[in-house]
Amino acid sequence: MIGDAFERACDAVVPVDGRAAAEARARHDRLTKPPGSLGRVEAVGIQLAAIAGACPPPRPRPAAVAVFAADHGVVDDGVSAWPREVTAAMVANFDRGGAAVNVLARAAGVTVTVVDVGVATELPATGPTVRNERVRAGTRNLAREAAMTVDEVRGAMDVGAATAAELVGVGNRALLAGDMGIGNTTAAAALIAACTERDAEALVGRGAGVDDAGLARKQAVVRVAAERAARLDDPVAVLAEVGGLEIAALAGYLIGGAAARVPVILDGVIVCAAALVAQRLAPAAAGFFIASHRSTEPAATAALDALALDPVLDLDLRLGEGTGACLALPIVDASALVLTEMATFDEANVPGAE
Amino acid sequence: MIGDAFERACDAVVPVDGRAAAEARARHDRLTKPPGSLGRVEAVGIQLAAIAGACPPPRPRPAAVAVFAADHGVVDDGVSAWPREVTAAMVANFDRGGAAVNVLARAAGVTVTVVDVGVATELPATGPTVRNERVRAGTRNLAREAAMTVDEVRGAMDVGAATAAELVGVGNRALLAGDMGIGNTTAAAALIAACTERDAEALVGRGAGVDDAGLARKQAVVRVAAERAARLDDPVAVLAEVGGLEIAALAGYLIGGAAARVPVILDGVIVCAAALVAQRLAPAAAGFFIASHRSTEPAATAALDALALDPVLDLDLRLGEGTGACLALPIVDASALVLTEMATFDEANVPGAE
Repeated sequence: MIGDAFERACDAVVPVDGRAAAEARARHDRLTKPPGSLGRVEAVGIQLAAIAGACPPPRPRPAAVAVFAADHGVVDDGVSAWPREVTAAMVANFDRGGAAVNVLARAAGVTVTVVDVGVATELPATGPTVRNERVRAGTRNLAREAAMTVDEVRGAMDVGAATAAELVGVGNRALLAGDMGIGNTTAAAALIAACTERDAEALVGRGAGVDDAGLARKQAVVRVAAERAARLDDPVAVLAEVGGLEIAALAGYLIGGAAARVPVILDGVIVCAAALVAQRLAPAAAGFFIASHRSTEPAATAALDALALDPVLDLDLRLGEGTGACLALPIVDASALVLTEMATFDEANVPGAE
Repeated sequence: MIGDAFERACDAVVPVDGRAAAEARARHDRLTKPPGSLGRVEAVGIQLAAIAGACPPPRPRPAAVAVFAADHGVVDDGVSAWPREVTAAMVANFDRGGAAVNVLARAAGVTVTVVDVGVATELPATGPTVRNERVRAGTRNLAREAAMTVDEVRGAMDVGAATAAELVGVGNRALLAGDMGIGNTTAAAALIAACTERDAEALVGRGAGVDDAGLARKQAVVRVAAERAARLDDPVAVLAEVGGLEIAALAGYLIGGAAARVPVILDGVIVCAAALVAQRLAPAAAGFFIASHRSTEPAATAALDALALDPVLDLDLRLGEGTGACLALPIVDASALVLTEMATFDEANVPGAE
């Protein structure tokens, strides 16, 4: 089960290019607009130049979203409004193209790949969109024991890193990250609490819509699990204690994207939890991450703060699947085009400021 | 100079369809996602249904942006960092496709039309993108006298309303609004202060980057002009006192879009000022307005609050030209597609919440 895709990816990550960033910053000030007037669009363009090591940077096209799916033993403790079977049913929905991520990916011109890295229940027959890379049929119950062994974590991270390498290998120039897993906001909150040493209960949200009683159960579970995990130093051990198979795979995928030197577009709280682990395993990888949006889950903001990432969108999203990443891609793309296609003051013969 | 396009547009505006909105709201709760989990994307989809009177709503495609350009006599008082000649030079830049709005419109699949409704200086020869509808070569200095006569305001509003009717007539299903005019954040701040009775000085920003001394001059001008305009009841008289030719044209364009029952996508502080006037002239028109972004100009937020509009983006933009509207269009489009293309729980055989 354990390959070396993840280790190779970690070794291949190098920092983004500060010189290309400085070139992009200087170019922005020569384009026919008041300096800084495109706000975050300028900042994203500068980051794209740093990622590519070139100014102007290439467009983030073609782009692919990988949705990693897995189940969570902690669902036994009543932390979700939805039954475990929804994970498999949604994978089938992705396969047929009817889920939100399919619609938003089509709208943004993004291809969808779904990776079953640990669904617990049987999947119906699915097409080539869905890959069976199951490391284990769901995690153990993180409320009571370690969710995974370290070998299981490494197996899932290899799946993620190999997926990134393959998607870039076939020509993609941006990787978008998504997740599906009933119960996974519980794991993500515990992971983020353990990594940031923030108050665990304050990081717990309603996920896919748990009621007040479920929220109280979820808070209690996250508090106990985060305390256990916070005692561990190794990020892989923390992932094993309170993470999820899709979160481990996502950590591998994000580092794999950074290793391939393409922009890696994050999504909601699950992907942000994976990004936090990825940053601890390969600090330079975070320079390749673009936060697509600020999820309403409180743990997402804690993770974004710890990563020092300023999200592109703030649309009160809390769906996951990579939906926010797909919604942000056109703005990321536009940020590259501004640096490529806009005229300079000299070219356009526009007088400068007095 | 005075036609009746504006009067006809005002008479044609009818409220958006609350029944279609309710249908869209109910449909969102049957789609395969936790109810409400797509946040603002759901809200925009519901508004598109209300605008079209149909659920699911049609896509906002094809889409057109009209950029209204004009000059401002108040530039004589040193309120801008840029010389007046920049307005004409930027119109020529739009014509050659090198400005930010050209790049972002191409990225979003939007056609650009530039309407010279009152540029003060000579334009070089331009192609068919630029229309000469000059009502007057720039406004008078609003610091000292009324910027326009009521007839000039009505002439510009007719140009805007006729532009909207024509763009919808050739098949566009969404209208985006943009502006160009050195000095126009001074006019917009005075107009918004007069309409909202907010403290004028607090609404004044640096526009395209005026320095501290210029900011102080701008604040003094806006305070005096807003006080004069606040004594007037008729929105057209307020526009004449402290507005601009492009702002008047935009008010006509926004009402023209509402009259044609298409989504009208606002941009920065100039378009928001026009929207405030439009709402006062035809209150039902505001139901067709989608705020694309929150400009960093403080008056923009005052206008959005008065219009009760929650913007799609918050990217620290302060450029105008319709750039924010072009950046938001893919998200507006995606909001329609979600209602059209996503599977329901029944269709996808996904179990519901427990």
